[in-house]
Amino acid sequence: MTASVSIWGVGTSRFARQPDTPPTHLAWQAVTEALDDAGVAPAAIEAVYAGTVFGDPGVTTRTLQHLGITGVPIVTVENACASGTTAFHEAQAAVGQGRYETVLAFGIETMTAVFDGPIEPLASDPEGAQGFAMPSLYGMAAQRYLHCHGVAPEQMALVAVKNRRNALNNPRAQHSGEFTVEQILASRPISDPLTLLQCCDISDAAAAAVLGPDRGAHTPAGTPDVAVRSTALASGQAWDHTTDLVWGWQLVADTATAAFESAGIGPGDIDVLEVHDAFTIGEIVTTEALGLCELGGGGALVESGHTSLGGTQPVNPSGGLLARGHPLGATGLGQIAEIVWQLRGDATGRQVDGARLGVVETMGGGTAGIDGNACVVAVLEAPGGRR
Amino acid sequence: MTASVSIWGVGTSRFARQPDTPPTHLAWQAVTEALDDAGVAPAAIEAVYAGTVFGDPGVTTRTLQHLGITGVPIVTVENACASGTTAFHEAQAAVGQGRYETVLAFGIETMTAVFDGPIEPLASDPEGAQGFAMPSLYGMAAQRYLHCHGVAPEQMALVAVKNRRNALNNPRAQHSGEFTVEQILASRPISDPLTLLQCCDISDAAAAAVLGPDRGAHTPAGTPDVAVRSTALASGQAWDHTTDLVWGWQLVADTATAAFESAGIGPGDIDVLEVHDAFTIGEIVTTEALGLCELGGGGALVESGHTSLGGTQPVNPSGGLLARGHPLGATGLGQIAEIVWQLRGDATGRQVDGARLGVVETMGGGTAGIDGNACVVAVLEAPGGRR
Repeated sequence: MTASVSIWGVGTSRFARQPDTPPTHLAWQAVTEALDDAGVAPAAIEAVYAGTVFGDPGVTTRTLQHLGITGVPIVTVENACASGTTAFHEAQAAVGQGRYETVLAFGIETMTAVFDGPIEPLASDPEGAQGFAMPSLYGMAAQRYLHCHGVAPEQMALVAVKNRRNALNNPRAQHSGEFTVEQILASRPISDPLTLLQCCDISDAAAAAVLGPDRGAHTPAGTPDVAVRSTALASGQAWDHTTDLVWGWQLVADTATAAFESAGIGPGDIDVLEVHDAFTIGEIVTTEALGLCELGGGGALVESGHTSLGGTQPVNPSGGLLARGHPLGATGLGQIAEIVWQLRGDATGRQVDGARLGVVETMGGGTAGIDGNACVVAVLEAPGGRR
Repeated sequence: MTASVSIWGVGTSRFARQPDTPPTHLAWQAVTEALDDAGVAPAAIEAVYAGTVFGDPGVTTRTLQHLGITGVPIVTVENACASGTTAFHEAQAAVGQGRYETVLAFGIETMTAVFDGPIEPLASDPEGAQGFAMPSLYGMAAQRYLHCHGVAPEQMALVAVKNRRNALNNPRAQHSGEFTVEQILASRPISDPLTLLQCCDISDAAAAAVLGPDRGAHTPAGTPDVAVRSTALASGQAWDHTTDLVWGWQLVADTATAAFESAGIGPGDIDVLEVHDAFTIGEIVTTEALGLCELGGGGALVESGHTSLGGTQPVNPSGGLLARGHPLGATGLGQIAEIVWQLRGDATGRQVDGARLGVVETMGGGTAGIDGNACVVAVLEAPGGRR
């Protein structure tokens, strides 16, 4: 028997390259905001699920100790780019199954500490050791996709235009700006057809959410609870390169189907989404796999304005990974925070009017993403339920 | 409502410095043995909790993919030296709460890939950066303990004598041998009063357990299920250096109390234990904190033979971390495997006669263990229940 689970509060640090800001300070910004938003004290937290990818062993317990969260079960999870949403998924399950009443989901990553300077390939990562890094993987996927489905490079670039513009109204975003399609395409080539402005940057940040049973209308801090309608987590099958589906398509589709069925919704019901756009091709493939359009229709979808702010189903109003930033372990909880703000009407300057149902999707995969990827999809609902 | 949870099968690789054995091969040894022991196919695994500390991001999903375990939720956890038992704890909870029916708990660590050669201190670890590594922490704890409680260095050395002797009958152990107390104390000083033979080594290994609901007498592979009576996980409070309790004492005592109460047992009921003896002082402090003797009585306890093979409550029949080896993420599941073999009567050469109730304890902590530690205690019961 599963109890209803709500998000009581959320918080994030700024997303930026900020090597001089220690992890304890990033954690303080995110967790203190989430606790205040939830109206609970650090001592009320009964368990923690924390996500980090390249964080030093113990970085989560150490930073939380400084905030007075200690002496409770703290489980640090790693699931590549989906680590933050994996922590959220496990926290949601722990509350839903009645293991705990008040659980903190937390994510932290200080990528400048790892990726400034020359990078040694991971010993266990044969693709990475051969130079097959994430941009290469996504570049190959984009090439294949353009070839099979007739999407134009200009349509791919429109994702970057949209998301970097959205971030202009997100004061915590890493890279905002007004760009033209031509400027996006003319930026430095990274992995053909991806150019620099179609790739996310490395980032340092923390993000957090406090989860518990629904508290109804009267919450300590006055901010209403947001309901978790469902979450789903799956790890990926190896990519079948003989199909026309590029990397991630099937995994996202399967995970979304599980989450949507569990929530009793269809793709057409969704008002706002934060999805995994580490590279522009990612958002195009993901909007298709989530069912916002047909296979191969993702380019036309972004071109139509359907996913823009003011469109029918805005995608990545925060700026997404491309513009808000992509601090691996913190990313998923940054997405959760944005959707919570949207569903409470608190996303000043980038608010999706009347948003009642929001979806978060995160795709994880090391450089060996072909055989080591993972996906989390979560369905969140505005206070008071749907109209 | 929590269902009864059993261990269907266990497996481990050899524990050794084996830098030329790739992680996929270590995983294959451990997981294949566990699956065969459980009598289930890779496709039967519905979810995985995997522990690693210094493993590359994705190492767990990549190695499992090669074994045909893919497309299911895989959550990689990190909880310092307690990562393997944290994975076990979460797997146990997932089965007990009915989230899944067949769950793999898996641990892997290839420490030679990280710790051969000069070691850079972790950026987030101020104690480590000042040279305050694990042997220093345990050395200071030992100094304090000897001062406060009158334990003799010779008693501490007896832990190493016992565990290295026990490992003589464990073909997968890393360091076995027949030593005298004098030889232990005369080995190279590491962090006074700890000498080389009182410290565990770095190690490369994998270990695994398959968990599910109890299947009764008839199992596919013919090996009986071992019941999980309880598990408890807690993270530590900062060490209060104004007390006479050395590092870890209170955390282990609190976690053990929770596990024993949940299982409805007392310390006197336990027939066999695998506990965290990364350094000799660790076993002495832990046997006290688990309630096998009074505070300060741990030295006399080992000297009495109470914890030797043939004694009333043998501790670390496998050789423990000191002699079997301590490959961080794999350690906890190595302990679980040993207790399962003991409770099934399969621990040839080191069998504790008639063992019905076994306990695993793992203590985790980075070099900043003072404020970032964790503990897991699990109570396991022989097939057919207690006499």
